[in-house]
Amino acid sequence: MTKKWIYMFEEGNAQMRNLLGGKGAGLAEMARIGLPVPPGFTITTEACKEYYAKGRQFPEGLEEQVREYMKRLEEKTGKKFGDPNNPLLVSVRSGAPISMPGMMDTILNLGLNDQTVEGLARLTSNPRFAYDSYRRFIQMFSDIVLKVPREEFEKILEKYKKIEGVKYDAELSVEALKKIVEEYKELVKKHTGRDFPQDPWEQLYMAIRAVFESWNNPRAIVYRRYNNIPDDLGTAVNIQTMVFGNMGWDSGTGVAFTRNPSTGEKKLYGEYLPNAQGEDVVAGIRTPKKIEEMKEEFPEIYEQLVKVAELLEKHFKDMQDIEFTVERGKLYLLQTRTGKRTPKAAVKIAVDMVKEGLISKEEAIMRVTPEQLEKLLHKQVDPNAPKKLIARGLPASPGAAVGKVVFSPDEAAELGAKGESVILVRPETTPEDVHGMYASKGILTSRGGMTSHAAVVARGAGIPAVVGCEAIEIDLEKEEFRVGDIVVKKGDVITIDGGTGEVFLGKVPLIEPKISGEVYELLSWADEIRVIGVRANADTPEDAKRALEYGAEGIGLARTEHMFLGPERVKIVREMVLARTPEERKKALEKLIPLQKEDFKELLKVMDGKPVIIRLLDPPLHEFLPRYEQLIKEIYDLMYKLRDAKDTTEAARILDDLEERRKLLRRLEELREANPMLGLRVCRLGIVFPEIYEAQIRAMFMAVAELLKEGYNPKLEIMIPGTIDKRELMAIKETSEKVREEIEKEYGVKISYMYGTMIEMPRAALLADQIAEVAEFFSFGTNDLTQTTLGISRDDAQKSFLGVYVKKKILPVDPFKTIDKEGLGRLIKQAIELGRKTRPDLEIGVCGEHGGDPESIEFFTSVGVDYVSASPYRVPIARLAAAQAAIKLGLKKSKEN
Amino acid sequence: MTKKWIYMFEEGNAQMRNLLGGKGAGLAEMARIGLPVPPGFTITTEACKEYYAKGRQFPEGLEEQVREYMKRLEEKTGKKFGDPNNPLLVSVRSGAPISMPGMMDTILNLGLNDQTVEGLARLTSNPRFAYDSYRRFIQMFSDIVLKVPREEFEKILEKYKKIEGVKYDAELSVEALKKIVEEYKELVKKHTGRDFPQDPWEQLYMAIRAVFESWNNPRAIVYRRYNNIPDDLGTAVNIQTMVFGNMGWDSGTGVAFTRNPSTGEKKLYGEYLPNAQGEDVVAGIRTPKKIEEMKEEFPEIYEQLVKVAELLEKHFKDMQDIEFTVERGKLYLLQTRTGKRTPKAAVKIAVDMVKEGLISKEEAIMRVTPEQLEKLLHKQVDPNAPKKLIARGLPASPGAAVGKVVFSPDEAAELGAKGESVILVRPETTPEDVHGMYASKGILTSRGGMTSHAAVVARGAGIPAVVGCEAIEIDLEKEEFRVGDIVVKKGDVITIDGGTGEVFLGKVPLIEPKISGEVYELLSWADEIRVIGVRANADTPEDAKRALEYGAEGIGLARTEHMFLGPERVKIVREMVLARTPEERKKALEKLIPLQKEDFKELLKVMDGKPVIIRLLDPPLHEFLPRYEQLIKEIYDLMYKLRDAKDTTEAARILDDLEERRKLLRRLEELREANPMLGLRVCRLGIVFPEIYEAQIRAMFMAVAELLKEGYNPKLEIMIPGTIDKRELMAIKETSEKVREEIEKEYGVKISYMYGTMIEMPRAALLADQIAEVAEFFSFGTNDLTQTTLGISRDDAQKSFLGVYVKKKILPVDPFKTIDKEGLGRLIKQAIELGRKTRPDLEIGVCGEHGGDPESIEFFTSVGVDYVSASPYRVPIARLAAAQAAIKLGLKKSKEN
Repeated sequence: MTKKWIYMFEEGNAQMRNLLGGKGAGLAEMARIGLPVPPGFTITTEACKEYYAKGRQFPEGLEEQVREYMKRLEEKTGKKFGDPNNPLLVSVRSGAPISMPGMMDTILNLGLNDQTVEGLARLTSNPRFAYDSYRRFIQMFSDIVLKVPREEFEKILEKYKKIEGVKYDAELSVEALKKIVEEYKELVKKHTGRDFPQDPWEQLYMAIRAVFESWNNPRAIVYRRYNNIPDDLGTAVNIQTMVFGNMGWDSGTGVAFTRNPSTGEKKLYGEYLPNAQGEDVVAGIRTPKKIEEMKEEFPEIYEQLVKVAELLEKHFKDMQDIEFTVERGKLYLLQTRTGKRTPKAAVKIAVDMVKEGLISKEEAIMRVTPEQLEKLLHKQVDPNAPKKLIARGLPASPGAAVGKVVFSPDEAAELGAKGESVILVRPETTPEDVHGMYASKGILTSRGGMTSHAAVVARGAGIPAVVGCEAIEIDLEKEEFRVGDIVVKKGDVITIDGGTGEVFLGKVPLIEPKISGEVYELLSWADEIRVIGVRANADTPEDAKRALEYGAEGIGLARTEHMFLGPERVKIVREMVLARTPEERKKALEKLIPLQKEDFKELLKVMDGKPVIIRLLDPPLHEFLPRYEQLIKEIYDLMYKLRDAKDTTEAARILDDLEERRKLLRRLEELREANPMLGLRVCRLGIVFPEIYEAQIRAMFMAVAELLKEGYNPKLEIMIPGTIDKRELMAIKETSEKVREEIEKEYGVKISYMYGTMIEMPRAALLADQIAEVAEFFSFGTNDLTQTTLGISRDDAQKSFLGVYVKKKILPVDPFKTIDKEGLGRLIKQAIELGRKTRPDLEIGVCGEHGGDPESIEFFTSVGVDYVSASPYRVPIARLAAAQAAIKLGLKKSKEN
Repeated sequence: MTKKWIYMFEEGNAQMRNLLGGKGAGLAEMARIGLPVPPGFTITTEACKEYYAKGRQFPEGLEEQVREYMKRLEEKTGKKFGDPNNPLLVSVRSGAPISMPGMMDTILNLGLNDQTVEGLARLTSNPRFAYDSYRRFIQMFSDIVLKVPREEFEKILEKYKKIEGVKYDAELSVEALKKIVEEYKELVKKHTGRDFPQDPWEQLYMAIRAVFESWNNPRAIVYRRYNNIPDDLGTAVNIQTMVFGNMGWDSGTGVAFTRNPSTGEKKLYGEYLPNAQGEDVVAGIRTPKKIEEMKEEFPEIYEQLVKVAELLEKHFKDMQDIEFTVERGKLYLLQTRTGKRTPKAAVKIAVDMVKEGLISKEEAIMRVTPEQLEKLLHKQVDPNAPKKLIARGLPASPGAAVGKVVFSPDEAAELGAKGESVILVRPETTPEDVHGMYASKGILTSRGGMTSHAAVVARGAGIPAVVGCEAIEIDLEKEEFRVGDIVVKKGDVITIDGGTGEVFLGKVPLIEPKISGEVYELLSWADEIRVIGVRANADTPEDAKRALEYGAEGIGLARTEHMFLGPERVKIVREMVLARTPEERKKALEKLIPLQKEDFKELLKVMDGKPVIIRLLDPPLHEFLPRYEQLIKEIYDLMYKLRDAKDTTEAARILDDLEERRKLLRRLEELREANPMLGLRVCRLGIVFPEIYEAQIRAMFMAVAELLKEGYNPKLEIMIPGTIDKRELMAIKETSEKVREEIEKEYGVKISYMYGTMIEMPRAALLADQIAEVAEFFSFGTNDLTQTTLGISRDDAQKSFLGVYVKKKILPVDPFKTIDKEGLGRLIKQAIELGRKTRPDLEIGVCGEHGGDPESIEFFTSVGVDYVSASPYRVPIARLAAAQAAIKLGLKKSKEN
């Protein structure tokens, strides 16, 4: 007994996705629920895996099973494979467990040869159709299976179109098509050295093999890598009776989404082409018609389609993307699958479906990925900015983008990798172009519709795209495009708006999006569901305001050093750094206190009533001095100049300059360190130069006192950076308490505040039980904690070895993007347990950049932190991700939270 | 009922050290076993603590108890305190639970006044003695209690010695002494504004208070800090009937050690002064006689002393340091305590006492501190080197030292703190000088004997010292000393040998000590007792040989980068670093392989049959290039030169130079890092540049293969530095196995080796269970693990904040000296448990510098490491410390070990 490698459609169902692939499972399910699906069967993904396991050999018994199931098809259809009198023709399509649109190959009309084509012509009384099908089949089969260059077939086709003076393939005469077939076969013989295979069985086996092979073609591999799809899933092969959309003008083919994949609107959306086969639509070669036009051209079919859409959505509880063919007035469904959608549509559909009672809020939240939400929060063209509109195409993928025009996908990939913003401009795109598309900020094509390759890929990747922009004439050789008189050359900057289809010349200012409508609704559900809080990292009142708009519940990290950097402050700060005694330092600090006080006051005012964690000075003092290399260079340059000084006045001036720089250099030489990351920074500054922290704490309490007197409700949390021992916390707390008493007396108010620390050195995590004796809150500074725990300096590593490590799979991901759950995760978990053992109500947060990373947020939720803090822009993403984490982990919000 | 503040000597015993102090407990014990101790009592340390607790007030009831116990003394002696007819005189001495020699104050002859001195004269028929005692008492009491400057008394004394033309105090006439007494009293009145106290009770209470106060005098505080003695122990006060060594030429006083404290020889050793009181000996003012001379001068007393010594040693089971006084032919013991000794004596005494059956091997091992052993392994003067002997003094503290001559203790302290080697040269030393003594490499005095202050302190601190070197004339004002015609000025270099008493002009080469005799024996016992192994960190065959001599059982760390630094190799290494492709790098590496192979071969040959851990390349590659700052400077200098070039030939040469440096600079700019400690180093080098590690591994296996063919038994352990993930180990292991197979084939031998890793990043420790899946051994690289776990860059921190941290007690000790047991200790413990869970026979070692630190060794023993590895010089110390750790922890060696 050999294994069962094949299932008839009606043997399967939607749950068998892994075995039958997405397409096969969809067809099976449709067949099961009685929708009009042309008969067929699916070769399982197991067969594909076995094919590779056996070194690219068909699994045992596969050929026999194919023959057996073909026989069943013959029985069902009454046709016979290879029989010139009543030939059975089939399509052979790939179908992986996870959708990879346009990535895999498909062969239609298989079974045609010099004899069956005649039979088909006789049976349909339509020789034009028969020979058109045959030439399509030869073209496809030769391209995919025999690897004969596609362009050569196109050349022959174009030649005959010119001869006959017609625009569309469908207008060619039978004679022309027969000649084309002959020329095609000669072309094949020339390229492969043998005749085009006439045996339908040989055709079938070769096609199955080609589908198996297509699983590992380069573009499939790239797609999988980009989308994190495992390489070992394999693809199924679907073999299905052909139905023909190109059997005349009462036939046609199309694709439809049950809702608008761009806006999410609940209305059948799609395109069709009369008298055409499916690949004409997908390839974007002929511009198809809008599905609404079917209401007039095919009114009954349209009605039928609307009903099918409703049935499918009820059945699958999600928006479906269907392929259909009309053969002589009869509707056939060829595929259904969960439809790709824009981020905007994803949110709207999810929210609408909750309201329609189709899905729960939790399901809705799981339907929108954090990446989609991120895309949705992409920038938009500023409506009030002056701009020069030069063209308008189809709004294929929303969002606005500014970038340099590039015409080659390779160049786009190259420049994109360097961090340049480019807009890829192409007549149309093919799967070979994806590497360049992914690297671009935006995509602009002159041909193709809303379901063209460019549109589908761009939407999937969330890259703004305008397609079918027929007004632009692209000259790939000259690397430029024209719109009327305007010439845009490679390197010129344009702006596109994928939400409106507009193309602007030059750089148009972009604006930040607002959160409203369905996004607001979805996020408010997320807030109901998530079990951890979301705060923002914000240093300025502007940041704080944006954070509030984006739903932050407090500030998890306000960095005081950023307040040291205003132009008028740098001078004072430098004075403080150059100070050699505590007295000198105090003098400089006294000038800083009122400035910092105002900063703190504004921040606390904006966040009134919400917690604000302010961190004491963190970076090494030498960061406030010029860079060493710069200083050395300046000194040497001045020394040159001194030699060439014209007169003593100039020499004296240069000498003054020199002296000032030498002074800076001397201090810098004292302060600079071999490893500043592990040096005199964080709270070590507060231990070695206590007056600095004292001044900052004074400014904070002054701000709080003034706000209290003004009737506000400031909630200050003072955070000590980089602790390694509770004694550091104790020493600084002593200062803090002393200053608080002074300020309370001075202002006549009572100040309450929380006192806590960042956990960013392994020792602090190891001694969390002791640290928690003093700290009322922890905030994991996961950036630095990653650096110290893994012994990796972020900036250095990213340029030298971290890429190699991820590429060689020594680390699964960049640990600065997603928290190192495996290693660092153990330490964090342990620290949380130790900390809570000492202080059960210890407030625990995360303020590293991981606080905005969905995967990391799931980890933090699982170990029980109280909140994450992210940059304002990532706050909505954190809210969604936190809700998804709670759902995945099965956690429910406690009432008190 | 008030507390019992006082114990008669016969009420106490040796176990009551904490309550009665060392001296009090010793006197009590001697009294208890019937030795001739003058009657007396002890005021407890509790009383002293209560004195401070009450704000420097006598505890309640203390005065009454003093009166009561004085009455008991009167009863025992038949004398009466303050009675001119038969006056009771007492000494008042301090005595802390831990010996602090010379640090505390003592008052003798208390009870004398204008009346009782007359009585004493009458009773003894010796007015000279009576008045000498009285003037001594006034001098001491005024100095210690009334704070009248000592020098002023000396001036008066000297004046009368000149008038009477005598050399010694004892030769002064009664008339002179009476006048001295009068002048002393006037001096006191002038300084204090009141008469010298005549009431014996007032004298007594003032003296007790002064002893309490002396606990917190500056030199006592310094001594405690240096010796890690807690500040809250308090001192006891011993009040004892006076006996008089200055009652004539049949009297005397002395100190004796039951064995020679310098050599350990079992023979009474000490000094005495006839017709003198104790402080004459201790202060080193009169040069005393050797105790052997008593055989002739006081034959019976000498016999008695020898018997007392034997009795005391049997009783205390340790070498004793006794003070005695002979009063008119009768021996009195005033003190016994465990004798301070040189490291050499410590070892000899410990070993001898085992052989004598007095103590066990374990006790012997606990008797020698690692610090003593370290001192013992101090350098010696090279006997074969040319040298200029300029003087010879007493060999007071063994070991040789080279340094600049300094005459001021303050200056010695200052220079010593800067790391300069200085020899402190003084006429004699006093307790005020200790800070300068501790900071010196050696001490040279022109006066004083083997038990003078200088000698005692130097021996205790293990500082080489030559004392009583009368040939040198010191001029403190001119800051120079003379020996005959030779003038040695401040800053001139001399060499002293504290083992021979020799003083040499200039720098004499020093040599490393050998381990032999008792040290060898003691260490062999340590080897029997310790439960962990001791290996050495050694990079060269020379190091390895020394390590073997010092008892290393293998090499725990051989750093391959040190092999990259030979002069002819730097060029090849630089070629490797500058390489831009693997091919270029391989070319350079091919030249290095034969060189490294020879290095490895030599090392393995020396260590034949013993394990040798060789670590793959560790430092960042830029360490092999010139320093950035240096290069920039050179380039700028060349640019100057270029402008001034005389002709085109010179310009061309300069341009060539410039180009070469620019090339170096470019590569350096690519390679240099913001935090090299956390950068592209350790096994990251092996992942990014696999050819480097492959070359090193090849060289190792070639060495092993050649040795096998030559009949040796090489035991190679390959160590991967800086792992953070098992996948690193797996990747490098793959290379290693591939190379092994190649070499095995090539040489026709079978190679076995161990494969393991350093644990020096927290992540490796956290994932020790996973790491142990691949690693057969761990070696904790505690230097780097301390840096990463505490987030402290060693070099940076030592200059900036680590000192402040230790001073402010935020960290208890420098974590780079003694392992941070509290924080890092948790991580290490956890890593060991995790590692052994995966691989029960995992070999675990330590190769950071902590491997040679006794306190750290105790920690490592407690957590179950298999061995520590230390620098060759510290191997003996590690052997001893490991044995002591096993004893303290109650661990026994398993038979198999």
